[in-house]
Amino acid sequence: MAKKKVGIINVTGYAGSELARLLWRHPEVELAEVTGRSAAGQKLGAVFPHLAEIELTIRAEPGEGLDFLFSALPHKASAEALLPAIAAGVPVVDISADFRLKDAASYQEWYGVAHPAPQYLKSAVYGLTELNRQAVAAAKLVANPGCYPTAAILALAPALRHNLIGGDIIVDAKSGVSGAGRTLALNVHFAEANENVSAYSLDGHRHLPEIVQELAPYHPQGPLALTFLPHLIPMTRGILASCYGTLRDPALASERGQEEIRRLYREFYRGEPFVRVTAAPPQTKHTLGNNLCLVYPAVDRRTGRLMVISCLDNLVKGAAGQAVQNMNLMLGLPETTALAAAALYP
Amino acid sequence: MAKKKVGIINVTGYAGSELARLLWRHPEVELAEVTGRSAAGQKLGAVFPHLAEIELTIRAEPGEGLDFLFSALPHKASAEALLPAIAAGVPVVDISADFRLKDAASYQEWYGVAHPAPQYLKSAVYGLTELNRQAVAAAKLVANPGCYPTAAILALAPALRHNLIGGDIIVDAKSGVSGAGRTLALNVHFAEANENVSAYSLDGHRHLPEIVQELAPYHPQGPLALTFLPHLIPMTRGILASCYGTLRDPALASERGQEEIRRLYREFYRGEPFVRVTAAPPQTKHTLGNNLCLVYPAVDRRTGRLMVISCLDNLVKGAAGQAVQNMNLMLGLPETTALAAAALYP
Amino acid sequence: MAKKKVGIINVTGYAGSELARLLWRHPEVELAEVTGRSAAGQKLGAVFPHLAEIELTIRAEPGEGLDFLFSALPHKASAEALLPAIAAGVPVVDISADFRLKDAASYQEWYGVAHPAPQYLKSAVYGLTELNRQAVAAAKLVANPGCYPTAAILALAPALRHNLIGGDIIVDAKSGVSGAGRTLALNVHFAEANENVSAYSLDGHRHLPEIVQELAPYHPQGPLALTFLPHLIPMTRGILASCYGTLRDPALASERGQEEIRRLYREFYRGEPFVRVTAAPPQTKHTLGNNLCLVYPAVDRRTGRLMVISCLDNLVKGAAGQAVQNMNLMLGLPETTALAAAALYP
Amino acid sequence: MAKKKVGIINVTGYAGSELARLLWRHPEVELAEVTGRSAAGQKLGAVFPHLAEIELTIRAEPGEGLDFLFSALPHKASAEALLPAIAAGVPVVDISADFRLKDAASYQEWYGVAHPAPQYLKSAVYGLTELNRQAVAAAKLVANPGCYPTAAILALAPALRHNLIGGDIIVDAKSGVSGAGRTLALNVHFAEANENVSAYSLDGHRHLPEIVQELAPYHPQGPLALTFLPHLIPMTRGILASCYGTLRDPALASERGQEEIRRLYREFYRGEPFVRVTAAPPQTKHTLGNNLCLVYPAVDRRTGRLMVISCLDNLVKGAAGQAVQNMNLMLGLPETTALAAAALYP
Repeated sequence: MAKKKVGIINVTGYAGSELARLLWRHPEVELAEVTGRSAAGQKLGAVFPHLAEIELTIRAEPGEGLDFLFSALPHKASAEALLPAIAAGVPVVDISADFRLKDAASYQEWYGVAHPAPQYLKSAVYGLTELNRQAVAAAKLVANPGCYPTAAILALAPALRHNLIGGDIIVDAKSGVSGAGRTLALNVHFAEANENVSAYSLDGHRHLPEIVQELAPYHPQGPLALTFLPHLIPMTRGILASCYGTLRDPALASERGQEEIRRLYREFYRGEPFVRVTAAPPQTKHTLGNNLCLVYPAVDRRTGRLMVISCLDNLVKGAAGQAVQNMNLMLGLPETTALAAAALYP
Repeated sequence: MAKKKVGIINVTGYAGSELARLLWRHPEVELAEVTGRSAAGQKLGAVFPHLAEIELTIRAEPGEGLDFLFSALPHKASAEALLPAIAAGVPVVDISADFRLKDAASYQEWYGVAHPAPQYLKSAVYGLTELNRQAVAAAKLVANPGCYPTAAILALAPALRHNLIGGDIIVDAKSGVSGAGRTLALNVHFAEANENVSAYSLDGHRHLPEIVQELAPYHPQGPLALTFLPHLIPMTRGILASCYGTLRDPALASERGQEEIRRLYREFYRGEPFVRVTAAPPQTKHTLGNNLCLVYPAVDRRTGRLMVISCLDNLVKGAAGQAVQNMNLMLGLPETTALAAAALYP
Repeated sequence: MAKKKVGIINVTGYAGSELARLLWRHPEVELAEVTGRSAAGQKLGAVFPHLAEIELTIRAEPGEGLDFLFSALPHKASAEALLPAIAAGVPVVDISADFRLKDAASYQEWYGVAHPAPQYLKSAVYGLTELNRQAVAAAKLVANPGCYPTAAILALAPALRHNLIGGDIIVDAKSGVSGAGRTLALNVHFAEANENVSAYSLDGHRHLPEIVQELAPYHPQGPLALTFLPHLIPMTRGILASCYGTLRDPALASERGQEEIRRLYREFYRGEPFVRVTAAPPQTKHTLGNNLCLVYPAVDRRTGRLMVISCLDNLVKGAAGQAVQNMNLMLGLPETTALAAAALYP
Repeated sequence: MAKKKVGIINVTGYAGSELARLLWRHPEVELAEVTGRSAAGQKLGAVFPHLAEIELTIRAEPGEGLDFLFSALPHKASAEALLPAIAAGVPVVDISADFRLKDAASYQEWYGVAHPAPQYLKSAVYGLTELNRQAVAAAKLVANPGCYPTAAILALAPALRHNLIGGDIIVDAKSGVSGAGRTLALNVHFAEANENVSAYSLDGHRHLPEIVQELAPYHPQGPLALTFLPHLIPMTRGILASCYGTLRDPALASERGQEEIRRLYREFYRGEPFVRVTAAPPQTKHTLGNNLCLVYPAVDRRTGRLMVISCLDNLVKGAAGQAVQNMNLMLGLPETTALAAAALYP
């Protein structure tokens, strides 16, 4: 059977080039074309020497005849670029934020522009694979989750589903610098970002409404009061989210309670190939370059709080890896195809 | 007038060597001797080439005739080593944790050993200079605060003093690796710590009781339920603490409320040479090598929470710099002597 | 056909764990056992969480019935541990230095101990695969090259083979910190190695005789006068070697000469899957986690010198990857099996 | 006596801001004004929070009435901006390259523009203070050396002066990323520069003619054949230069020869406050933030080569610190004023 032909719109950022890295080794699909406006006409290997073995010339626009399409464009441009494929029935995964929020007004509030294709918001599926597996498998348009939301939602969904905590939640997240992308900016200039840590987006980060929207069904008791604060730390890849909630049952604030909670988490993620409930506090280094999300719940016995630490590689499970995971499901392939690598340690 | 003769017990760790760096340029005191058991007999410059211009040989034990003494030994050993000086009336600053907790039972619970000198716990002054200036100036024995507590307490004291928040507080702190000291360990081995972030001490960090003890007087309404979670991030120096509390007055969850809170913070720290309430989220890089603590309060309007970000250099304001600040006060010198350097940026 | 059963002696260092990472995904062999004395009895995933999916318990000593054996022990211990397998005719790759030098006296001079098995020095093959492919394929005992020698020899062999330069050569090499291994030491303590660069082994590094021995056949005109100076730089993985020689033919010190030299280099490595002569100065980041060695020759027209820059991942092409490459040849498998991954960028 | 009023043209780069940091603590001069076109009108502390205590507003152009002027503009713009001050007899230090090369044709060759003020090339003094102290003290126009030349020339001048080596020299230099300045570029984007090392300027770096020009007087025997190859390594500050030459006297290729060479080096730099001949291979970390250049000569006995390692902080001894050192001399102040700090370690 002929391999499916796959394209990447905007290969020239970190999510796009990571997609190319993963798809190149995918045994069931063929990376057939890549686009990137500023680099159009160049060999892929001229822009990304680590991809020099992929014999492709970067195109200005996607062509016809693709069986699957990814977009790694920025928001708004991404939806616009995908519209022809969506209309033509080509299955797509959008790595931008365009189809994540269900509410066009919320999109406009957070992204500052009118949504370019609100008619597709309803049918788009939020591609956090573990939580929405069946819907993803049936979807033609999947919105790939943000890096922070992937870490935060996977950390908190089990606790909310089991009603372990209330809706007052704090997510303190730390991200490597590649999350800011390949576009030049002073805060990610090496001499500025190195040996430095800072919080940002204190007025509200665009990933907040996404986290709240996706966790809401797990907390039917009422609205979530969730504070999300991201931090930039001096490393290239990796996100670690430290999540705090208040245990509803004070009896859980105990060694035994902690064991019970861990059991529930392991149960929740049983059989998941890309989520592991760890036995010790996880480290981002143990996810470098692979598609794992590590999750570790613990209780603060003194205060009755639940702390859940999760981590992942923001460019893999937080972007390109999850996108391939979704594609695999959408194409009826084994979910782990091309994704089963151990992390690069140390 | 003859300069005061000052000694450092255990110069061979990072806090000790940083003390030597600062005291060497101090115009009013003379760094007269340094000790360090394993390196006894060596030139200071042989162990620390950056201190080669200080003409001192490391001694095994402190001598007589000092006017002031610092100890940078680990806990228990530090109190034991300081006992003769304390008994002799020599003013001392202890950088270890030995005299920080007022309660010997709590000390034993957290440090796992009986306190070696409980008779001095009452008279020891907790040397968070800005909050205890007068007591420090009058003290003979000052317990230098931990690095995390300095950041956390300076961030939270104004909010609690003004009753802006309740006692439910989360402190999520990120530290550079030098905080773990110069002793070899796998988690601070370069290849392990680099490109990595993780939470640690989820069962409770020794700096927690210190934070709670010192903040308690600012929150007379009742006990604090404070969760403190430290993280290790891949940089050498710097701590950033992100502190979360719930605003008592919902009206403060507004632009105007934020301005009012910032005004109260600026008021609280008015005239302080080493605490600055910043106009933008602070970065550890802006404290590299100097004695500043930067503090930035902000409100999360969506949830009614107060977020206070603070940062400092863990070896300066978090250790040796604050120790010198305390010494200056104890010796009747201007508090900023030898400490007024701009941060090393970038 | 049953997969070949492969073992790793001393999986607990960085070379050993990297071998496990690579072999785990190898479709033609089975990682059947791993040893490590200090960690014997523990699950592999307990020591290395990134390898948690490999269901193996670390043994104290290798067992019977293996079809292939790697040793990643330190020198001397490695040869000793391999002797039974060698005697039994099991094919082995030794990642230590024990079988690299052909001369037992030289071994003793550089390693300070008598060679534990000099009887095998003659038959051992130096496993720089590209230069010794046929001998490796026929060998039972392969000495895997050092990380620096791999970079230096691949950079210089073409120039010497074509008599482009004389025997006066300088190799200035820069290595990430993982090259120093997982054993704790002050110079690779994070706070010491971070934001720091230094030269080391100015009295002579053990990789020098290895480089000279292997390059000698390419320079039959006389002895090499080769200076090798390694440097430690603050990153985890990667080696970059800058090699300098004097062009024999002054006419080559020209744009045209440079083109001719590059043509000869491309010709020399034509068809090699793991050596690429690049079109621009190479970066270690473009080899992160994969088995490539990038080589870039350039001429300094002002002085008539040849400069060759080469780089690789010290734990892959410089250790475990090359070991697997050698194993593939020794077992008659396609040389690239399990090694064809793109570098992890950024 | 009134303090001298000092100005900085273009404070907004790293050299300029480092000058401000040093001058702010200078007891004998007053930092009276700073300029920076893009940031004109802003408070200095708004652009550089670490300098918030300096109460200055950035001006578009320098004013009148200054007693001393620094320029940290890029080449060409720097000379142009300094012309009025030079004409008015105000003493200046130019941190750009404009007055370093004595030959206007060479300037045009390397910098690609006609020299904007060739009439001053003859009277300008190359401000490598240790080698040109008297001329600097008498000068009105000092060209501050480049960062690489400072390291290379201080490493090699003693060997050439004593005719220890011939004119065939290789300088392999490694620089932290701040050397590339504050201007955004992909190669110094954090995610690209981190965990990466590469050589650059293989066709010739602009610091080469500067090194050759200044070393030429130390090698009257004939022209130097000097290859200079710079590398970018993942740290913020610091340069380490590894210099290689061939010993003229084979007898020096010995333990005794090495001792003799070290003696000559110590003699050469006897009494120098900012050059130290070290007893062990130096590390850039031991110069972080201070004005030292560390120099370490060693011999490769096997090949008869001299290796000299030197290192410094590229923004201090390699730029702003040396500029202040020169200013001190030009104003008749003690040379070490405001420069006597220990390095920030670790």
